[in-house]
Amino acid sequence: MSFFKVLKKDSKSSARAGLLTARRGTIQTPVFMPVGTKATVKAVTSDDLYKAGCSIILGNLYHLYLQPGIEVIEKAGGIHKFMNWERSILTDSGGFQVFSLSGIRKITDEGVEFRSIIDGSSHFFTPENVVKMQCRIGSDIIMVLDECIPFNEDYNYTLGAAKRTIDWAKKSLRIKSKMDLDKDTRIFGIVQGGFIKNLRKLSAETISGMDFDGTAIGGLSVGEKRDLTIEMLNYTVEFLNNKKPLYFMGIGDPLGIIEAIRNGVDMFDCVMPTRISRNGSAFTENGRINIKNKGYTYDFDPLDRNCNCYTCRNYSRSYLKHLFKSKEILSSMLLTIHNISFIINLVDRSRNAILEGNFESFRKNFIKGYNI
Amino acid sequence: MSFFKVLKKDSKSSARAGLLTARRGTIQTPVFMPVGTKATVKAVTSDDLYKAGCSIILGNLYHLYLQPGIEVIEKAGGIHKFMNWERSILTDSGGFQVFSLSGIRKITDEGVEFRSIIDGSSHFFTPENVVKMQCRIGSDIIMVLDECIPFNEDYNYTLGAAKRTIDWAKKSLRIKSKMDLDKDTRIFGIVQGGFIKNLRKLSAETISGMDFDGTAIGGLSVGEKRDLTIEMLNYTVEFLNNKKPLYFMGIGDPLGIIEAIRNGVDMFDCVMPTRISRNGSAFTENGRINIKNKGYTYDFDPLDRNCNCYTCRNYSRSYLKHLFKSKEILSSMLLTIHNISFIINLVDRSRNAILEGNFESFRKNFIKGYNI
Repeated sequence: MSFFKVLKKDSKSSARAGLLTARRGTIQTPVFMPVGTKATVKAVTSDDLYKAGCSIILGNLYHLYLQPGIEVIEKAGGIHKFMNWERSILTDSGGFQVFSLSGIRKITDEGVEFRSIIDGSSHFFTPENVVKMQCRIGSDIIMVLDECIPFNEDYNYTLGAAKRTIDWAKKSLRIKSKMDLDKDTRIFGIVQGGFIKNLRKLSAETISGMDFDGTAIGGLSVGEKRDLTIEMLNYTVEFLNNKKPLYFMGIGDPLGIIEAIRNGVDMFDCVMPTRISRNGSAFTENGRINIKNKGYTYDFDPLDRNCNCYTCRNYSRSYLKHLFKSKEILSSMLLTIHNISFIINLVDRSRNAILEGNFESFRKNFIKGYNI
Repeated sequence: MSFFKVLKKDSKSSARAGLLTARRGTIQTPVFMPVGTKATVKAVTSDDLYKAGCSIILGNLYHLYLQPGIEVIEKAGGIHKFMNWERSILTDSGGFQVFSLSGIRKITDEGVEFRSIIDGSSHFFTPENVVKMQCRIGSDIIMVLDECIPFNEDYNYTLGAAKRTIDWAKKSLRIKSKMDLDKDTRIFGIVQGGFIKNLRKLSAETISGMDFDGTAIGGLSVGEKRDLTIEMLNYTVEFLNNKKPLYFMGIGDPLGIIEAIRNGVDMFDCVMPTRISRNGSAFTENGRINIKNKGYTYDFDPLDRNCNCYTCRNYSRSYLKHLFKSKEILSSMLLTIHNISFIINLVDRSRNAILEGNFESFRKNFIKGYNI
């Protein structure tokens, strides 16, 4: 059975509905992956996520490496057992986080040296050891180490980083092939190249042509305007092997997700739906609202009338506002359940629209109703 | 059907197993009531509480009055609907909280004037308006306004406060009798009298002899040593009408609960099980542990091997330690589920022991295994 299968392509866009046959069950695509950086999707239990229809979550090797440490997770019997999650886990290498540590990290061709934000101790990530560590903790989908660069770096810097990422990609595949692994342990390469089109093309063609199970697009959605994100995504996709699943790293707002799907993205993740929950924000069909606003004191409707999540079935905007104003933990819990459910539901509806051949009208309708 | 029925009395102590027939279902006693001060038991959902076997929770009028305000809860259709809780709710008047506001409150025979800790605005609680407000929000069991005094006040101050509490108790019954209420709205009087035995006796006999549905013991467990708490409890109980349910306000640790049950207490509440959860502490059969301690990094056992709660069925001490160290909300959530479940389970086992006639040996066994 092949890892990825496209079931239906949209006739008016690059959108597609597919199926990932992963070690721990099939995953319908497009799919949103909630971020569980430190082996927990913030403020929800695994049961909450199952009920929201979540089939795969993210972990972050860099964070797990620092706390609790790889050995703890390995001795626990792997990340799934450690965190009580039975479905799929994709782990990011944490390249993005390490490269954000400007001033306390140093890049060489061999890898990246950095200091722990916890105790200042020195550490070294290489393409090889991040693959090994992700295997040790039992990740289902491993991400390679890539060099993430800030927005709008110059040509030479961007070229250097893109080449290094390609070199590291080769090393990643080599080390994985030497390991004694379950064949269902998957590995994805990451396309970089900044915002420079011919470097994006170079990176896309090279990474996509290598023996990875999937392709990720990195280095976008890093602070630039949304139009530019989508333009670069659209441009990059042309050069990719479209038989492999395409993962866009770091997009999670409703409009961004719909645009990503339209451009052929199969998988995406973002901290946004969980982060805004802790700030009192919620997605609705009519746009994003903040529960602390005045109008909600006597509003006894659910966050979204069409939403069937635990929060919307049982709690009112008035109550959620009260919880948020009272700084109660339950506020973060209930808003997170809703926002994750909302996004997963939106992606499911997009998928159904693709399967039924009406994605374009679904997309237009959704955008029309959604006020930012 | 009478509100309270004693099913079985222990032969060797004052412990008893009973049944409260409340508006929203029967409540087996002894019963622990988790504290949901601001219309939420901190860090858990209603479903979590149902699963833990919780049949009644506490609310606090003082806090709800300040935020979100009585009118909001009334318009929501009452406190149960507002907070999505189908079972019983006992509301405390918040006397204890108001009287703790030294410097920003003023007591007269009519009531207590205080300033809001939120915006400094001035408010006045009277025996009458606290009953009315608890009725307006739909509380199942209403507590009267009482005057709580600090530990070790002198005789005259304590006498004055005890007399005022008696006077307020009369006013409370009078106003309730004039209101158009469901007859199943219950009201409890509160015994005060500090740590002075003849004032405790005066208060106990007077309050217990009035037409209340239950008797609460207030003003204990306010900082004094446990032996003194139990001595005063034991002394006070003698003067109470033992046909009424007895509620001890503010006890919630395992050993305290067992002692309270032994002395004839039917109901108790405390923030302790929920509060310690947010500080990384957990009850176990062998005593209280703090999950941040060194020994737990590689401890893949559940918090308590005999506990059947969601946390113990699914998560290890190692994982809980990781969550706590990472300051993850899930840490508070999972520890709260466990600690509430543990206490409710302990009370259930005490009840079964009373029914089976072996409470004394159950009590001794538990204390023997439990290291503070």
